[in-house]
Amino acid sequence: MLDKESISLWFQSLQSDIIKQLELADGKGKFVYDNWQREEGGGGKSSIIQDGNIIEKGGVNFSAVYGPTPEFLIKSNPTLIGSQFYATGVSIVLHPNNPMVPIIHMNVRYFEAGNHVYWFGGGIDLSPHYVDEKDAQFFHQTLEKACLSHNENYYAEFKKWADDYFYIPHRDETRGIGGIFFDHLTGETENDKLNLFNFIKTIGNTFAPTYVHFMKKNNELAFGENEKQWQYIRRGRYAEFNLVYDKGTKFGLETNGRTESILMSLPPRAEWHYNFLPNANGKEAQTLSLLKKGIDWANKNMSIEKD
Amino acid sequence: MLDKESISLWFQSLQSDIIKQLELADGKGKFVYDNWQREEGGGGKSSIIQDGNIIEKGGVNFSAVYGPTPEFLIKSNPTLIGSQFYATGVSIVLHPNNPMVPIIHMNVRYFEAGNHVYWFGGGIDLSPHYVDEKDAQFFHQTLEKACLSHNENYYAEFKKWADDYFYIPHRDETRGIGGIFFDHLTGETENDKLNLFNFIKTIGNTFAPTYVHFMKKNNELAFGENEKQWQYIRRGRYAEFNLVYDKGTKFGLETNGRTESILMSLPPRAEWHYNFLPNANGKEAQTLSLLKKGIDWANKNMSIEKD
Repeated sequence: MLDKESISLWFQSLQSDIIKQLELADGKGKFVYDNWQREEGGGGKSSIIQDGNIIEKGGVNFSAVYGPTPEFLIKSNPTLIGSQFYATGVSIVLHPNNPMVPIIHMNVRYFEAGNHVYWFGGGIDLSPHYVDEKDAQFFHQTLEKACLSHNENYYAEFKKWADDYFYIPHRDETRGIGGIFFDHLTGETENDKLNLFNFIKTIGNTFAPTYVHFMKKNNELAFGENEKQWQYIRRGRYAEFNLVYDKGTKFGLETNGRTESILMSLPPRAEWHYNFLPNANGKEAQTLSLLKKGIDWANKNMSIEKD
Repeated sequence: MLDKESISLWFQSLQSDIIKQLELADGKGKFVYDNWQREEGGGGKSSIIQDGNIIEKGGVNFSAVYGPTPEFLIKSNPTLIGSQFYATGVSIVLHPNNPMVPIIHMNVRYFEAGNHVYWFGGGIDLSPHYVDEKDAQFFHQTLEKACLSHNENYYAEFKKWADDYFYIPHRDETRGIGGIFFDHLTGETENDKLNLFNFIKTIGNTFAPTYVHFMKKNNELAFGENEKQWQYIRRGRYAEFNLVYDKGTKFGLETNGRTESILMSLPPRAEWHYNFLPNANGKEAQTLSLLKKGIDWANKNMSIEKD
């Protein structure tokens, strides 16, 4: 039987594997580790990279926490009264130095309560400071392929979910070019659970090669002061999303989680300029025009050939 | 009778007066104005300063908005069904260049709904990057004096309210050294209303001379790279408070307010370093030890004589 310990162990191995691949691609930055305990049960291992060649700041965090099932879950499912919950997963955010390299985020997680309720959740999304349409297509096609190997409906469904989730209402902008987002994936049989876990594994394993591709390719691109300033402004929007809307951040802060692990997602440096309006014909305005829901990146007919 | 138009006009004059005093003290920065209209009724005048001699970024914003009373207020007071609300006030946040000059915030506001419900609210608080105990005492004694001229209980009550309000739970830190915070101040008679308005006027008029005092005195103080970095980190905490906890920000973003006016409070540049721990004997650690609730700054026996 697929038990929580096996799932948690796999998440630990995923953390370790991703760290190795990122360190190799970065060439300089090394992750430092912080083990932490949660008073109510469980804990985690945060691993943080700062001042690398390519990655300026980021975290690849593992956690496995447990304890009495929280009230709000019992409210929606009274059979969980008196039960224990267990939650484990890996969370990643990486902020690169070079504004031509995108910010990336991934989360994969497993939750169970009592002996009859479980689900998997997660997501992976890309936030380029400058949207390159071919990069966006590559990213979405990679995710589409990963999803298709498990279920023909996953990509369309989870891509839309990401568009809706990674959205900043007060800016009427998406955080980036989206990706996939999913939650509460559950099933009836042991086979269902194995299939879902296999899907999670595929997504988790997709992360490192995909981001390493952008690290290598885009870190070659030149940039100047204007691009740095725009990067700081886009990072400000990233901070706005994470602090105002992100459910994981909110849940972590409200439930007395480990603040430094939760807020590793915040950028090393961000700026806010009053009412910043980019040049109407520039590549910044072009990027803004592409931070919209509903763009079918995987199948987009590229209007502008870039190379 | 003291009507909403008179109150709103006074707020406009306060905005204008504060802008003049700040421009004079800054010597270089000029406020730029943005008039905006709210689709549902009313609007405002945002005035923003950027890249001054002393003030790096800040706003002194006026607004007066009206329309049908929102649902959540009708829920707590059903006599307001079918009524109109009117809300007007001035909001200020100023971020200085020099880390030895504190960040300051003030809000004064008036709200009414129907023809029988009104209240005043507001607050003023100081967030030094480096807490100077004498500065903190000066600030609190100024507020205490302003409060005492109206009501002998106001300062103690509103100082505690500020300690509780300007607090960052996930950091277990106050945002700064507090100040005063108050809300829902209302009364039975016309005289009560006049007295409350006079209190609001006193607080509003206290702002400019108090901050100009810090602008002039503290901008003379030397600083280096270490102090700038610490300033960016403290500004990160300021952004965390405003985006995660501040009720005005939350209300503004949720009710489709003018985003650029609401988020003028965010710092021009902020930084997040993973698990930053200042030197245990340094002035940064000293500041952290003073970002606590319940310090009686106005009557504190200064343990360390600084000059």
